Amino acid sequence: MKKHNYSAGPCILPQEVFEKSAQAILNFNDSGLSLLEISHRSKDFVAVMEEARALVLELLDLKDKGYQAIFLGGGASLEFLMVPYNLMKENGKAAYLNTGTWASGAIKEAKFFGTTTVVASSEEENFNHIPKGYTIPADADYFHCTSNNTIFGTQMKEFPETDIPVVCDMSSDIFSRKIDFSKFDIIYAGAQKNMGPAGTTLVVIKEEILGKTGRTIPSMLDYAKHIKADSMYNTPPVFPVYASLLTLQWLKKIGGIEAIEKINDAKAALLYNEIDRNPLFRGTAAVEDRSNMNATFLLNDESHAAKFDEMCKAAGINGLPGHRSVGGYRASMYNALPLESVQVLADVMKELETIV
Amino acid sequence: MKKHNYSAGPCILPQEVFEKSAQAILNFNDSGLSLLEISHRSKDFVAVMEEARALVLELLDLKDKGYQAIFLGGGASLEFLMVPYNLMKENGKAAYLNTGTWASGAIKEAKFFGTTTVVASSEEENFNHIPKGYTIPADADYFHCTSNNTIFGTQMKEFPETDIPVVCDMSSDIFSRKIDFSKFDIIYAGAQKNMGPAGTTLVVIKEEILGKTGRTIPSMLDYAKHIKADSMYNTPPVFPVYASLLTLQWLKKIGGIEAIEKINDAKAALLYNEIDRNPLFRGTAAVEDRSNMNATFLLNDESHAAKFDEMCKAAGINGLPGHRSVGGYRASMYNALPLESVQVLADVMKELETIV
Repeated sequence: MKKHNYSAGPCILPQEVFEKSAQAILNFNDSGLSLLEISHRSKDFVAVMEEARALVLELLDLKDKGYQAIFLGGGASLEFLMVPYNLMKENGKAAYLNTGTWASGAIKEAKFFGTTTVVASSEEENFNHIPKGYTIPADADYFHCTSNNTIFGTQMKEFPETDIPVVCDMSSDIFSRKIDFSKFDIIYAGAQKNMGPAGTTLVVIKEEILGKTGRTIPSMLDYAKHIKADSMYNTPPVFPVYASLLTLQWLKKIGGIEAIEKINDAKAALLYNEIDRNPLFRGTAAVEDRSNMNATFLLNDESHAAKFDEMCKAAGINGLPGHRSVGGYRASMYNALPLESVQVLADVMKELETIV
Repeated sequence: MKKHNYSAGPCILPQEVFEKSAQAILNFNDSGLSLLEISHRSKDFVAVMEEARALVLELLDLKDKGYQAIFLGGGASLEFLMVPYNLMKENGKAAYLNTGTWASGAIKEAKFFGTTTVVASSEEENFNHIPKGYTIPADADYFHCTSNNTIFGTQMKEFPETDIPVVCDMSSDIFSRKIDFSKFDIIYAGAQKNMGPAGTTLVVIKEEILGKTGRTIPSMLDYAKHIKADSMYNTPPVFPVYASLLTLQWLKKIGGIEAIEKINDAKAALLYNEIDRNPLFRGTAAVEDRSNMNATFLLNDESHAAKFDEMCKAAGINGLPGHRSVGGYRASMYNALPLESVQVLADVMKELETIV
């Protein structure tokens, strides 16, 4: 049976990424060797890494603008630590916007390094909206925000203007919509939503902002060292990087961010329209801050849950339960989820209305 | 043509690991979903992680001895930093044995945290042997060594007795030979030699040694946090962990470390016998310290190199050039390299002798 995979991450990737990456494990580039058994310094894998790094900058429209893209191991959670290590001066200060679990995690790690100012937080309303109208201190070493919150289903539609460096955790919506990415100084993203499988983290860095803290940085946490080594300071996560390259190639082929944004807008409109129209359901996030990636919603009457879950299962819908801190449902509609899968979900919601 | 893959890492893995992991990317556990698109919190992947962690302890004979096995991202180079963060007291001291490039890297990172004593080093002889007869200071917080050096082809055959915690980087020879692993307090290993593909690092920790430094440790660098979260503090590198599990299952099936050690001994004997017998070649490492994993050797007359390289290529031999800091050749004979591949190399060496 055809599956409709709404997993919040790791999540659906294009079918051709599954097929091509499986083939590379059996026989990479027709070499008679598996992708898994070749040296990361081999010509074939160096080409993979270089193409992936270049394609990131091309898709984000950051070519020749002073940026470098690197693929690290460790997960975006390690960036919570690396960002202050690389940007916060001794006895320095950083400004954070708190929009949820991941932002809170980033704030916690930054406290190791200096003063952390939370410019605004929606924590008291269970992160159901994106705070607005806050002031960013001009003397902070950087401002950090999280563009999309997978758990609470909120997404920043605008980003503040400031003269200090701006760092953004885009783990769950990078490559999904057009933004002027050159307004950011560091963008980081765990691969496992719109870029590839779990196991690598993309970091895009405006090089000129590095080297200004006065700190000595441990090698593996030093962005400059990873850049200097062409993202091969140590053995990189070979397979996750390769599958990410395949996903980026797919995105370019279908027309890049501009094309996928239209599809993502259509998917989100279809589902949110049904949530708003259908008297059985209600959304949990403030309407103006609704995420196009993760739609969070509840049944107004919990007694329909068993029936709805059964119907979802029968329709091949997978990964719909909401995070325990919100409950209800979360439909993650990352780049590779087709519009038809959203139609299937909307149809099940309509059908539930007719039978209860 | 059949390939004989001598890559130093990433390196050859069992053929069934390639086949099963490729299949899991297309359809995992017959779920209709790819391994790459399911939640790391799903029942199916939690089972993978739990089996991998348990199998590590079983194969190392460390079950019910107070150890925990965790799979991290970031590479063994990140452990160079995590070990002192977790074990070195404020104003503490650590003792290191310097046997090569990786040991030197570990020493460099430890200097961030306190005093580092190098108990012995073979650096002046280009690390061609393992130092012996050194004294480990009893007041150090731990002793760190590297069991096998992939670049220089040396391997520790004995480990020192000491009352302080012993930490060992076993990246390139874990699971290859019988050792009393319970003599170690922390064992770490990048997966990409005997355990799996690049992208995850195994850390085996005697739990009782943690929590004694007085330091506050950033979350992602804190072994205790990863243990408490059952190796799922953040999204783990799903595919590398799964492929590692398949490799561990293969090792168990063929008889575990005891069985593979016999095969590894036979492979090493075959190749070193040929290096010592054949007047065209000489080994570079001290005979008593020769690695069973990486045999490093030179041609006595460099003018035969072009012919030898051509013959190797014709025989399907891959990955034989030595590291630039040693030159010559390096035959990496990790667990999954069959004895027949070593026979092919020895035969080419013999054949070269007959024609030059």
